[in-house]
Amino acid sequence: MCSLPVPREPLRRVAVTGGTHGNEMCGIYLVRHWLKAPGELQRPSFSAMPVLANPAATAACRRYIDCDLNRTFTLTFLKSTATPDDPYEGTRARELNELLGLKGTDQAFDFILDLHNTTANMGVCLISEASHSYHSGFNVHLCHYLQQQNPGLPCRLLQWESPEKETYSVDSVSKNGICLEIGPQPQGVLRADLFSRMRTLVASILDFIELFNQGAAFPAFEMDIYRILGAVDFPRTADGDLAGTVHPQLQDHDFEPLRPGEPIFKLFSGEDVLYEGNSIVYPVFVNEAAYYEKHVAFLKSERIQVSVPALPGLTSSSTLAP
Amino acid sequence: MCSLPVPREPLRRVAVTGGTHGNEMCGIYLVRHWLKAPGELQRPSFSAMPVLANPAATAACRRYIDCDLNRTFTLTFLKSTATPDDPYEGTRARELNELLGLKGTDQAFDFILDLHNTTANMGVCLISEASHSYHSGFNVHLCHYLQQQNPGLPCRLLQWESPEKETYSVDSVSKNGICLEIGPQPQGVLRADLFSRMRTLVASILDFIELFNQGAAFPAFEMDIYRILGAVDFPRTADGDLAGTVHPQLQDHDFEPLRPGEPIFKLFSGEDVLYEGNSIVYPVFVNEAAYYEKHVAFLKSERIQVSVPALPGLTSSSTLAP
Repeated sequence: MCSLPVPREPLRRVAVTGGTHGNEMCGIYLVRHWLKAPGELQRPSFSAMPVLANPAATAACRRYIDCDLNRTFTLTFLKSTATPDDPYEGTRARELNELLGLKGTDQAFDFILDLHNTTANMGVCLISEASHSYHSGFNVHLCHYLQQQNPGLPCRLLQWESPEKETYSVDSVSKNGICLEIGPQPQGVLRADLFSRMRTLVASILDFIELFNQGAAFPAFEMDIYRILGAVDFPRTADGDLAGTVHPQLQDHDFEPLRPGEPIFKLFSGEDVLYEGNSIVYPVFVNEAAYYEKHVAFLKSERIQVSVPALPGLTSSSTLAP
Repeated sequence: MCSLPVPREPLRRVAVTGGTHGNEMCGIYLVRHWLKAPGELQRPSFSAMPVLANPAATAACRRYIDCDLNRTFTLTFLKSTATPDDPYEGTRARELNELLGLKGTDQAFDFILDLHNTTANMGVCLISEASHSYHSGFNVHLCHYLQQQNPGLPCRLLQWESPEKETYSVDSVSKNGICLEIGPQPQGVLRADLFSRMRTLVASILDFIELFNQGAAFPAFEMDIYRILGAVDFPRTADGDLAGTVHPQLQDHDFEPLRPGEPIFKLFSGEDVLYEGNSIVYPVFVNEAAYYEKHVAFLKSERIQVSVPALPGLTSSSTLAP
């Protein structure tokens, strides 16, 4: 995020993007539905715009055509000169930057909500790209609001830190933004239960933005958030092929504590591989299909309890209807 | 199958094929493992040959490159003249026919076991292509043996009838053969529990063939089998796009009875679509990712109780070691 963690103005230009990955079906079919029936995305102070982010990958039901669109929105790339050799997703990133940006400028959208599915048993998760002051920010209040509105539905906030790199996600184009990740759902499958859950959560997120725009203040609270520490690859043979896969005791246990000495992989030879770290971590994206090619069997995260200051209401002058 | 339902000779030339679909991971990694360590596939009377059926699709982690390999092995195609315009899977089908066939001739392999995964909650399922006398055949005894060897693990036999078409599957190349289907597993994901289950079942299947080769006789029994009746497409909009998806009450309920009047789809508008048939059917491949492009939300099957006659032992002259 290039913005301050707490917006000072109402969020009026809001987009909901689906199909950033062309085989993650909930966002694809929600966006297609909203393009025909946009009423669900309207609130008194704004109307969110549905956007099918990667139409070619969606038509092919593949994550991407040439490269991962959700890693393409660096300022370095967006400011470079377009060439005929650009990958499809490069061209599409420039188009989306024109539509929803320009990234890093005043005319960029106020908020992008980017919809994703995972094959991992992640439940409901909000993913926020790095911001050093995340614990005071809008996104933590948003996550807390979803938890309150949906009791019994675990909704975690996962902080995707990339301290030395540029932000690159679709939602990094807007001044504020977040990714909503729901699983488990196989690639290319649309489950009615997850579709309905994502639809409900998008409505709650738009309701939160509406409350904020109307000047509501949100009190301080404490909550746990998760911060990515790094990736763990599969065990491999000398020629680089898989030598085993995620251990049954880890499979489907995203966000649960992994202690030193507990098994993480089952080798095809039958042996177990144990976790050799020094401290408890919380694995996420455990056995996500799309990460095999990235050499990631799971990501390690740490759980942090944060004290989140109140989110003050906007001043009345800024909340006047347009 | 081009053969009689009960072999009269030992099955000595046996192949185990994986990666017929390049994103169904259990068979792919079992075959890759066995290519390096073939001992598990050896029995006193035969050694099964592991074959990676579709290497290009496996490398790309896609079901296929140009067309579905498991629909390509018709005699009409295999006997046609190869051309430079053949799809990749056409060329590969000819290669596999040279390796494991020729289909329909005496030199064809005795048995092909083809390994598959599905995103549907099918559990363990053996799929046998049409044979009018299926209820007296080798494959029903094989399924019964797996049920006895693996108590508590439902193992069903699904009969894939195509009375007016030629057989087209990988296993149709051999004189006898069957497909082992295990789910649910997302495409592109290797779950340790399903990998281990498939490995155990392959071992049981080879044990059954070994018993048969040694002259064992198998007594008569009764069992339920399932026979495909037809396909049901998703509800669609006027422009052909999905208008809904599989209903939560049907999702994950493969092989369970579906009664007239019960819901099968949840429309995006919120309405339910009810099953309007006249009799109970047993849905299978419910919400299988690969079948969206085939316009199949699920297949209807009927459950039939069959009385299976004894499988006589081979005569001693035919069971002599080679």
